[in-house]
Amino acid sequence: MGLAPDADAPEAFMDALVEHGLLVPGGAAGIVGRSAVFEDIRERFDAAVSRAAAGDGAERMSFPPVLPRRYLEDTGYLHSFPHLAGTVFAFEGGEQQGIDMASMADRHEDWTALQQASDLVLTPAVCYAVYPAVAARGPLPGGGVTIDPGGAFAFRHEPSGDPTRLRMFHMRELVRIGAPDEVAAWRAGWCDRALALLQRLGLQVRAEVANDPFFGRAGRMLARAQREQELKLELVVPIAGPRPTAVASLNLHREHFAAAHGLTLADGRTAHTACLGFGHERIVLALLRTHGLDPRGWPPGPRYELEMA
Amino acid sequence: MGLAPDADAPEAFMDALVEHGLLVPGGAAGIVGRSAVFEDIRERFDAAVSRAAAGDGAERMSFPPVLPRRYLEDTGYLHSFPHLAGTVFAFEGGEQQGIDMASMADRHEDWTALQQASDLVLTPAVCYAVYPAVAARGPLPGGGVTIDPGGAFAFRHEPSGDPTRLRMFHMRELVRIGAPDEVAAWRAGWCDRALALLQRLGLQVRAEVANDPFFGRAGRMLARAQREQELKLELVVPIAGPRPTAVASLNLHREHFAAAHGLTLADGRTAHTACLGFGHERIVLALLRTHGLDPRGWPPGPRYELEMA
Repeated sequence: MGLAPDADAPEAFMDALVEHGLLVPGGAAGIVGRSAVFEDIRERFDAAVSRAAAGDGAERMSFPPVLPRRYLEDTGYLHSFPHLAGTVFAFEGGEQQGIDMASMADRHEDWTALQQASDLVLTPAVCYAVYPAVAARGPLPGGGVTIDPGGAFAFRHEPSGDPTRLRMFHMRELVRIGAPDEVAAWRAGWCDRALALLQRLGLQVRAEVANDPFFGRAGRMLARAQREQELKLELVVPIAGPRPTAVASLNLHREHFAAAHGLTLADGRTAHTACLGFGHERIVLALLRTHGLDPRGWPPGPRYELEMA
Repeated sequence: MGLAPDADAPEAFMDALVEHGLLVPGGAAGIVGRSAVFEDIRERFDAAVSRAAAGDGAERMSFPPVLPRRYLEDTGYLHSFPHLAGTVFAFEGGEQQGIDMASMADRHEDWTALQQASDLVLTPAVCYAVYPAVAARGPLPGGGVTIDPGGAFAFRHEPSGDPTRLRMFHMRELVRIGAPDEVAAWRAGWCDRALALLQRLGLQVRAEVANDPFFGRAGRMLARAQREQELKLELVVPIAGPRPTAVASLNLHREHFAAAHGLTLADGRTAHTACLGFGHERIVLALLRTHGLDPRGWPPGPRYELEMA
């Protein structure tokens, strides 16, 4: 099943996905509902990652899509990505203010001046809650730990009409915490495993050195340093638009998160951490784009890998 | 396996859950991580609901845990629950403001004055995104529709140390939209089905007429009216503390959501809606409380119902 040539534009791809009932407009840029077919593919991919990860013996630890504001402060998140963070505000007023706020909302006036910052922010990446939770247990066991926070929602404040750039999307992460050489070896091994998994799904994928979308002028220097040290690898696949889209990333954080949260090895040294993140929705979109909008017509290879009957 | 008598207090129950590794402190009141064992029970319960619902032929439609702020305005949410809403703020400033914000965060000063309201709020109940999405399709088909938004996160701003009162928790909803008599019959039928399901799980459950936690003095009148008209039924189970906890609710909205979003029947009349919501975490906690903190020791009945090997 082919898409019309003008579907190369991300917005045209979004229209095709909505027309075929795979996505449901959610009433705001970058917010979409997902159909049974879309969710079935997404969950099957998540299970395929679990099968590929079975040998890691990872400990599952699942967190909600909000976390303490303090965690963003401790990790310096706002130095790198102030433009992507979402913070949670709430109402702490009394009876009359509540009535005023509701009346303003009835008239679609701006009632948000009556909201105050809470102690929570939206989760910018699924692994952020993992590091302090593991640190709270004390020094790591020998050999470190691998944590599986599952497929969970993350938030990025970047409204657009591009289906590959949602504001709230599922990220399946795996997190490795341990000695520097263990962590680097884990990332290298997973780069091969993740590439092989996406190739078995019939995707035209390649790995490349990448950088995060750091904010502002200082961000350009951070990006250059990140590339020079090859701290971020991305697996990219053509989906829509002129350039391929990152569908997974493998990140070496060195001591960044461990120092922020006091994660230490058994011998007292600061641990290293790394994470692998698959972008669930982007992978489903890559599959739909590559093999057609109806999974019943997909080739045997990807269907076998996803255990489709 | 019994809990110590002082575990009757919700906070003591939380301590026992953390000590047994079932929950992981999330760094803020009402924010917790969940272990593999906890998630396994939660997912098995979700699947049991799907089996009980199979005859409904519901259409699956899954949304993220944020939705347009406008939806709260259109439905008058802030008249009833201004104290429970969470709103999403973000940064729209330039380079220097970004640097200032990050520097304040480094010193754990309050940087949230540099955040501005976005067009999003946290999802207060999983069904909120469903009504406008169905309304956008035009008038309902004859017989109405049943929508399954799956087990998804909802947010309530009520920080506490009670494990049965999380700020972000999973709600498994089912939504019925149709003619008044169809919708009322669906709710009555599901009250019986949900009671039977929870009884098969070995829970000491009963149905009772209830009211929402409406805000303020005006809220007391809303609560009384809701009770008089029996618009809200709750299924309650003893978990921790002096009173049983609602683990499911069945709500008749009459024309409330349909009028707000323009949901009409085939003949042009405004539709009625109802929803059923199971509180995933509360049900897992009720099972752990009733049958013990290790599911391997649970009685055969609940284990059979949850398809535990």
